[in-house]
Amino acid sequence: MDLTHINKEGRAKMVDVSSKEDTKREGIAAASIYMKRETLEKIEEGRIKKGDVLSVAQVAGIMGAKSTPQIIPMCHPIMINGCDISFNLDFENNKVDIRSEVKNTGKTGVEMEALTAVSIAALTIYDMCKAIDREMVISDIMLIKKSGGKSGLFERDEYNGKGNSY
Amino acid sequence: MDLTHINKEGRAKMVDVSSKEDTKREGIAAASIYMKRETLEKIEEGRIKKGDVLSVAQVAGIMGAKSTPQIIPMCHPIMINGCDISFNLDFENNKVDIRSEVKNTGKTGVEMEALTAVSIAALTIYDMCKAIDREMVISDIMLIKKSGGKSGLFERDEYNGKGNSY
Amino acid sequence: MDLTHINKEGRAKMVDVSSKEDTKREGIAAASIYMKRETLEKIEEGRIKKGDVLSVAQVAGIMGAKSTPQIIPMCHPIMINGCDISFNLDFENNKVDIRSEVKNTGKTGVEMEALTAVSIAALTIYDMCKAIDREMVISDIMLIKKSGGKSGLFERDEYNGKGNSY
Amino acid sequence: MDLTHINKEGRAKMVDVSSKEDTKREGIAAASIYMKRETLEKIEEGRIKKGDVLSVAQVAGIMGAKSTPQIIPMCHPIMINGCDISFNLDFENNKVDIRSEVKNTGKTGVEMEALTAVSIAALTIYDMCKAIDREMVISDIMLIKKSGGKSGLFERDEYNGKGNSY
Amino acid sequence: MDLTHINKEGRAKMVDVSSKEDTKREGIAAASIYMKRETLEKIEEGRIKKGDVLSVAQVAGIMGAKSTPQIIPMCHPIMINGCDISFNLDFENNKVDIRSEVKNTGKTGVEMEALTAVSIAALTIYDMCKAIDREMVISDIMLIKKSGGKSGLFERDEYNGKGNSY
Amino acid sequence: MDLTHINKEGRAKMVDVSSKEDTKREGIAAASIYMKRETLEKIEEGRIKKGDVLSVAQVAGIMGAKSTPQIIPMCHPIMINGCDISFNLDFENNKVDIRSEVKNTGKTGVEMEALTAVSIAALTIYDMCKAIDREMVISDIMLIKKSGGKSGLFERDEYNGKGNSY
Repeated sequence: MDLTHINKEGRAKMVDVSSKEDTKREGIAAASIYMKRETLEKIEEGRIKKGDVLSVAQVAGIMGAKSTPQIIPMCHPIMINGCDISFNLDFENNKVDIRSEVKNTGKTGVEMEALTAVSIAALTIYDMCKAIDREMVISDIMLIKKSGGKSGLFERDEYNGKGNSY
Repeated sequence: MDLTHINKEGRAKMVDVSSKEDTKREGIAAASIYMKRETLEKIEEGRIKKGDVLSVAQVAGIMGAKSTPQIIPMCHPIMINGCDISFNLDFENNKVDIRSEVKNTGKTGVEMEALTAVSIAALTIYDMCKAIDREMVISDIMLIKKSGGKSGLFERDEYNGKGNSY
Repeated sequence: MDLTHINKEGRAKMVDVSSKEDTKREGIAAASIYMKRETLEKIEEGRIKKGDVLSVAQVAGIMGAKSTPQIIPMCHPIMINGCDISFNLDFENNKVDIRSEVKNTGKTGVEMEALTAVSIAALTIYDMCKAIDREMVISDIMLIKKSGGKSGLFERDEYNGKGNSY
Repeated sequence: MDLTHINKEGRAKMVDVSSKEDTKREGIAAASIYMKRETLEKIEEGRIKKGDVLSVAQVAGIMGAKSTPQIIPMCHPIMINGCDISFNLDFENNKVDIRSEVKNTGKTGVEMEALTAVSIAALTIYDMCKAIDREMVISDIMLIKKSGGKSGLFERDEYNGKGNSY
Repeated sequence: MDLTHINKEGRAKMVDVSSKEDTKREGIAAASIYMKRETLEKIEEGRIKKGDVLSVAQVAGIMGAKSTPQIIPMCHPIMINGCDISFNLDFENNKVDIRSEVKNTGKTGVEMEALTAVSIAALTIYDMCKAIDREMVISDIMLIKKSGGKSGLFERDEYNGKGNSY
Repeated sequence: MDLTHINKEGRAKMVDVSSKEDTKREGIAAASIYMKRETLEKIEEGRIKKGDVLSVAQVAGIMGAKSTPQIIPMCHPIMINGCDISFNLDFENNKVDIRSEVKNTGKTGVEMEALTAVSIAALTIYDMCKAIDREMVISDIMLIKKSGGKSGLFERDEYNGKGNSY
């Protein structure tokens, strides 16, 4: 199987999907951001009080899902039908787990939108906490599930092998 | 120490940096994308021929560095002075290592620009190879070095503990 | 009735509209910008000569309608079918009345696009006249009419109670 | 005094500020969104629980301040140094009062950034509550204070004449 | 026939296309950038080595096609189905010929997307080579073919009259 | 002399300008759009009435100058100090000549901003007139003058050799 994004001259193109049918599609992705316990506790406190770091990360993630075609060069423009992002504070492994669910009806799927959403949510958490913790690490950005379209269902086995709490 | 991005009502604000001085600053970040050996070989072939997947990822990463303040809600607008991204194909661990170097002269630093650049470069690699490998995982997004500004030099020890080849 | 933009954790989400049908929709909104009589006269002069302030406001409003999903976090991406903006100089009350009409065919409506269009048109008038009048006030931004979709027709009674001349 | 945004042909231009000096500047703006009492109560409940509508409006307003030069055609690009937005629920007049403070160091001021921030925050509140209240009205968008630059200090007298609670 | 982008007041509007049907459409455009022979040779060398100038121009052109509705004020938002750009080095006339093919399914066509793609690809070539050649000239930006929609097929006769090698 | 936008691996980078000094800079660019005489007359009529096609093109060009760093991948972010665009209807050669003047104070110049401004103004004219004339051709996009910075003054000789009326 070949890399479909490459044209005859060996350079990138945006693949033609004109002949694909519009189907209902869903993409689910995950990411984790590892941090000092102290940082995690600050985030939790904030959430109990007025919920700020995660609220901002959530808005950033949703807006990131919408701007995916502007950010990822070969992505098709897509009109997403919905996007939800949730967070889980994992005190056992000192990390925040992030999960996105994106839906659309169209000729191409929303895997990239789901992956971009969790990535930007994680970067936003980094940004808002970096004054107290520069050593945070964002890891385990992965596709959990994808449905709809000709290639059908994809589900990741044991995706939480690295401790993702979802 | 408190989370500086939170105002008196407990909600987010963009911190006032008016009284900070303009200094020369640099940020270096890294990320890795793990994949099937077959996928890594396809990318290498491509590079030998006309270099496409990584060329596109590089453009995406540089444009991502520039659009960081539009993507990350509390980031200050910044005029970056330069941005370089490089890639290393690691056949021992079946991954591509990505490294960004961003420079600016200003009141705030370019950590987020460097981290956003490697994240978007990695997402672009995912996008261009996902037709042949949906199980790729993006990990180890981290700040390697930061210089300039009041908080001074930050350098990550042993950042390549997880096998990042830089 | 609940706020539909809030998820189970109490944070914002973009509502899933996958199961909604595509229907023809229309949104009409209004706004007014109050100013000194001298400012209004300058605008009129300009219009008689070569029409500038309002022409720029009109372009800004139309581009604003198109960028609504990038500006308003929980708005669904929409492909608007058309957008028209008109202005009325009201010398009785020393204000400019702005009216937008936006149309689309889709799963969600264009209320926000119509409201964003008049808001940005008004802000543009402020920007272009602020050198001679800093005390202008933008008011009465409201939805006049909305048709299409499951919730059906909405028409505002007496919307011009505050003197909007449309 | 003439409209400075108009060139010799009578069309718009972006005024040349090359010879202006960089000074510290500040802009403060206000807006109010009038609504049904029931809507205001829903927002307050939300805030007590996990604060969502206003958190999203705040992020939208801050990002709006940053994107002002992309939205308002003749606005100069500006690097804002900081931005804070606050909200006051006014149960006497059934409205939410919004106030923004924006700072920069540069050749032009941040009046438009402050005005755009409150406008977009208000539009976001409308968007998130429109399912339960389509008759909300956004009004009293005005500049409260502006300092720095050649034109010096501007402060609005009696700006809260219409009941703005700040 | 009248200019359809102008409303009753003589100002611009985005034409209403609600009643148009969705059809498959295609747009093909061309452009050329004339330069010193030395510059053309540098580009070719680059391409033979690792292909950079043209790879960057290609990514820029494709992203430009996607952002056309944000750049061209009265353009309708469109979801393009695919986009390919190719380059031909013409050593006889010392120029690079650029050709774009864009496809969509929708109520309006992709002429502007195709024209914007080649324009931005050409500007990117200028940007990357301007350190060695400031006198490059971009010319012959034109629509080659357009199919689909009510106005039907358009094909340019003798479009290569000026030496475009496609 | 080498292409400065290419890094050691042969791929693109954004050149580091940290050590350059801030100087006052100016860029002037030109473009022409050739059309049927009938189209040119329609534009002139429009201008006499209320000036629309060229007003919209002017706003588009100015906004294009501001968004150059988002559109052209390796361009440095720049805060332009001013931008003016003018048009000349050339009935001898049936074309519209477009001229932009852009100014900034910074480490890099505004050649690309000036060139992008005239290109987008020309594309906007095409868009607004294409319903009556699909065969328009945009040509002669070139840098006329550039001042400031280490490379000093550049002025194009005989730039109007092809009939540009400026």
